Amino acid sequence: MRVLLACCLWLSVFAPPAHAAQVERIEPANWWVGMRHDRVELLVHGKGIAAATPRLSHAGVAIVDVQKTDNPNYLFVTLEIAGDAKPGGFEIAFAEAGKVVATHPWRLDAREPGSAQRHGFDAGDAIYLVTPDRFADGDPSNDSVPGMREAANRANPNGRHGGDLAGIRRHLDYIAGMGFTQLWPTPFLENDQPGYSYHGYAITDLYRTDPRMGSNQDVRALARAAKAKGIGLIMDVVLNHIGSQHWWMRDPPARDWINHGGRFAPTNHRRTAIQDPHAAPADRQAFVEGWFVDAMPDLNQRNPHLARYLIQNTLWWIEYAGLSGIREDTFGYADTQFLSDWAKAVLDEYPDFAMVGEEWSINPAVVAHWQRGKANPDGHVPHMPSMMDFPLNLSLRTALAQADGWNGGVEGGWMPLYEMLANDFLYPDPGRLVVFAENHDSSRLLADLDGDLGLWKVGMAYIATIRGTPQFYYGSEVLLRGPKQRDDGLLRADMPGGWAGDRADAFTGAGLDARQRDAQDYIRALYQWRKRTPLLHAGKLMHFAPADDVYVYFRYDERRSVMVALNKHAQARTLALDRFDRFLRGRSARDALTGKPVALGESLRLPGKSATLLEIE
Amino acid sequence: MRVLLACCLWLSVFAPPAHAAQVERIEPANWWVGMRHDRVELLVHGKGIAAATPRLSHAGVAIVDVQKTDNPNYLFVTLEIAGDAKPGGFEIAFAEAGKVVATHPWRLDAREPGSAQRHGFDAGDAIYLVTPDRFADGDPSNDSVPGMREAANRANPNGRHGGDLAGIRRHLDYIAGMGFTQLWPTPFLENDQPGYSYHGYAITDLYRTDPRMGSNQDVRALARAAKAKGIGLIMDVVLNHIGSQHWWMRDPPARDWINHGGRFAPTNHRRTAIQDPHAAPADRQAFVEGWFVDAMPDLNQRNPHLARYLIQNTLWWIEYAGLSGIREDTFGYADTQFLSDWAKAVLDEYPDFAMVGEEWSINPAVVAHWQRGKANPDGHVPHMPSMMDFPLNLSLRTALAQADGWNGGVEGGWMPLYEMLANDFLYPDPGRLVVFAENHDSSRLLADLDGDLGLWKVGMAYIATIRGTPQFYYGSEVLLRGPKQRDDGLLRADMPGGWAGDRADAFTGAGLDARQRDAQDYIRALYQWRKRTPLLHAGKLMHFAPADDVYVYFRYDERRSVMVALNKHAQARTLALDRFDRFLRGRSARDALTGKPVALGESLRLPGKSATLLEIE
Repeated sequence: MRVLLACCLWLSVFAPPAHAAQVERIEPANWWVGMRHDRVELLVHGKGIAAATPRLSHAGVAIVDVQKTDNPNYLFVTLEIAGDAKPGGFEIAFAEAGKVVATHPWRLDAREPGSAQRHGFDAGDAIYLVTPDRFADGDPSNDSVPGMREAANRANPNGRHGGDLAGIRRHLDYIAGMGFTQLWPTPFLENDQPGYSYHGYAITDLYRTDPRMGSNQDVRALARAAKAKGIGLIMDVVLNHIGSQHWWMRDPPARDWINHGGRFAPTNHRRTAIQDPHAAPADRQAFVEGWFVDAMPDLNQRNPHLARYLIQNTLWWIEYAGLSGIREDTFGYADTQFLSDWAKAVLDEYPDFAMVGEEWSINPAVVAHWQRGKANPDGHVPHMPSMMDFPLNLSLRTALAQADGWNGGVEGGWMPLYEMLANDFLYPDPGRLVVFAENHDSSRLLADLDGDLGLWKVGMAYIATIRGTPQFYYGSEVLLRGPKQRDDGLLRADMPGGWAGDRADAFTGAGLDARQRDAQDYIRALYQWRKRTPLLHAGKLMHFAPADDVYVYFRYDERRSVMVALNKHAQARTLALDRFDRFLRGRSARDALTGKPVALGESLRLPGKSATLLEIE
Repeated sequence: MRVLLACCLWLSVFAPPAHAAQVERIEPANWWVGMRHDRVELLVHGKGIAAATPRLSHAGVAIVDVQKTDNPNYLFVTLEIAGDAKPGGFEIAFAEAGKVVATHPWRLDAREPGSAQRHGFDAGDAIYLVTPDRFADGDPSNDSVPGMREAANRANPNGRHGGDLAGIRRHLDYIAGMGFTQLWPTPFLENDQPGYSYHGYAITDLYRTDPRMGSNQDVRALARAAKAKGIGLIMDVVLNHIGSQHWWMRDPPARDWINHGGRFAPTNHRRTAIQDPHAAPADRQAFVEGWFVDAMPDLNQRNPHLARYLIQNTLWWIEYAGLSGIREDTFGYADTQFLSDWAKAVLDEYPDFAMVGEEWSINPAVVAHWQRGKANPDGHVPHMPSMMDFPLNLSLRTALAQADGWNGGVEGGWMPLYEMLANDFLYPDPGRLVVFAENHDSSRLLADLDGDLGLWKVGMAYIATIRGTPQFYYGSEVLLRGPKQRDDGLLRADMPGGWAGDRADAFTGAGLDARQRDAQDYIRALYQWRKRTPLLHAGKLMHFAPADDVYVYFRYDERRSVMVALNKHAQARTLALDRFDRFLRGRSARDALTGKPVALGESLRLPGKSATLLEIE
């Protein structure tokens, strides 16, 4: 209070002239004392603000740089924050000709203890992915918000359905009870778009939670409540683009802020051009600078102010909300060097943090290009600890969906998956990949498999037991199915029980049919088992060439192992065990999910379309 | 003569005892003075020979090691050959209890001048691949050879047809006239097998040309005659296996000479197991140690005597026949470390030599594992200068065979090829790969394309103009087609005109129909152009993302370029040229095959299913 009073007294000396510069916003609106990133570049927006000179008076805080762009309504002001600066609010003043013409509050905060040392998600975790608009409506009062462009309409598959952060928070016990330890909601920041705004990837304010989801405070409260239940919060960050209704679009900070001069030109999606030694530079450029869709202006991260803005925005959310990880959208579509700088900046600040990028390619050499430690021929030095394992995802779906005896071989259709996993030598750290059977952009596995619950369990067991961090998509545990051909609105269907009056309730089990209960029980048992089984987190992996429709692998250490035997065939198979002597000889086994002893004779009977999961000691 | 006489006099002092050791053969039967490989391990075979002690007397030659195996009928005798040893023949004597019981002639030869400095094939070359039994019968008198297990039967698609080295030699002018500068005959060494012996991959004597093909002297004469016409000879070497009638099989040099104790156990073909960090060691072993088929016993190159035998055998053929390169069969199926040692030994002797390995995988990361300079995570240090580019081969065939507008994209089905080439960053030296549209183990491209000559020309133009050394399979220039599904005997059909009385003659053009003449003219023009166009040998490559069914790339240097525009669509396409400004602006163009000027306006008309080849200056 004393500081504020002092400012006011100081400011009162000056009266603003006519047509003076104004300040509409400063971003970020606060920072923290003791960050390694202690030079914060503030984006200051306001009519004519470039004509003004910023000033402030706060112990330990100094303005060390001021830069302008070609837009007179922006200033970029760099503050240096000393390690012994005092937390608290103060005013930043803007002067013209020696006279203060505008002021804006700003604040320094104290960090949470241990913030820099936070441990991000890893292979010991299992991630539950939700589309917040479709998971649970915890606060019907915010389904539609006056002044925002799209109101709720649950009857429209592509409209907003009212799900929100409160809904997620209400069901944290359910998520924890299912065995998951990380929560990845697709983006919840403001998407004040006229349509298709529910998905969240067209962000219109990078520092504001969408009011129809909740508030920034609600995000922080969700993270805290989740943490108390052993669940980390992963934020979905979009570096490549914004929504066309982002306030920047009405007054772009610089002419080069948006690629293609702010006019829509589509990306060519030619992701291979990034590493391709023969690619035409224009194709590489068209990939990176092209827009996804006209509603998503593509950010030019080669503008250094924008680059710093995005990096600081990420650091801000980690620090503010207490995140345990980041999922970065459309990785690769952003500027290549920026991606490296961004990830490095985050890890410089939080060395043990986790980030996973989305590179939607079946080619592991394309995905591996981005993982920290990869020695790339093109000289790109990546810093992402983790990437989404799309190659394994696509191979799993191919393997499960194709007929037995495919290609005339004895492999029972398992070869695409077996051979894809063999490519792990391409990754610096395959154990840090995030594995998944489906996500919010694919069809659901059950749809791929035409509702075959046996094969579905085989696929789900694979994801829970193979190396990496598994990611599960909400609702599949109660057999949400959706269409076989991609249709985002239908894929991201409402979670039963998330809305008052729903006929069935996935959270209580009420109204679920027998198949749904069976599936939900299976997923719960699987992930609860995974949670308590360190071998599935950090155990080595050895797989055996598929034969007779069966694919077998082990997670193991020096003393014990988990055996996974996947039978794709509709008929039972008798698996000879002599190939697995090194793991089985002289050992005893029990069924991992039931705990019942299993005799290890010369062979093992595997029911048709089943995953046999054994703990071996 | 004096030497021989001296030996005889010396030997006459001793009379052999009863049941004394005998010598049936010594391999190699000669070596050369001045080889870097100057310690030659001789395999000596003869009843009871292990009981004998070898002796010799020749200036500059010393026995420095003698080793035995578990078979008393073998001795491995290492000679050290001084750099100043005199070429000439001498006897190696074998003594028991001080008495010479057997002798065998041996010989030192002088090297051809410049032998060590020979330059192997490279991207400046184009390879003509022939199946010798099916190319031309130059000497009908050797079609069947008394005492050999299989006689000629031209009516049997899987039998011997009588083609031979003399037939190839007779048509060297034809091959040179077509623009080819390298000749790769599939193996011509003895295959004294009861059936399917024509293909040559079941070798029964690694030091002997099959008499039905000719003699060792004929091989050397062929190489010399070819060289005189500007054609190098590439030998097809098989390190992985031998034929079941190889004389070793009647008396194996050691119990571990043949994998699986000399009994058939099939390979699992799980080539990914080599690099797979998760592979079960037993799967890796089954891949390497398993046999291809029961007629091809699998060699255990971990036996050091066998390893040296194979290395020396390769060096011997290079030096003896004057080879310009080696194609190594079923690469990867042989012992991994041996493959490295073998290739290194060859390059130590001939640093500028060329070798290409066959790794039949669509995965470029699998193929790249073997190329010299690759830093492999598994620590394997490869030495092969070149590998067959199977990934590009398979992608080309997929791209050409799939319908236009595949996958709903604008790419006209070109994406598999465009994206595969993008993986070149995986290779240490993609420009040294050997590219091909088809070979003796695939279907012919024309069959794949259901006889579509337009698309076929597109594919052939691609192979002749993309980076690497192109390889062409005999007979396709006159539209030998064969079945669409692999059928080796039918695929490797007789070259028209290779046999007396053939109705048509590819070599003279007599009896060819219009389509055949058109195809042959096209291939000749293509490869003659390639031969005289250094940009196609060493020019850089830039390709552009396919669009509107058209795939465009350039081979270029600082001053000029070759433009290749491939239109897959049945209809003509108008190609806008603004994307290619950097190559075309202010330049003039002429058609590469006709030499006619081509106007470079705003666009270029590309006929349906055509390759437009322009020289730009």
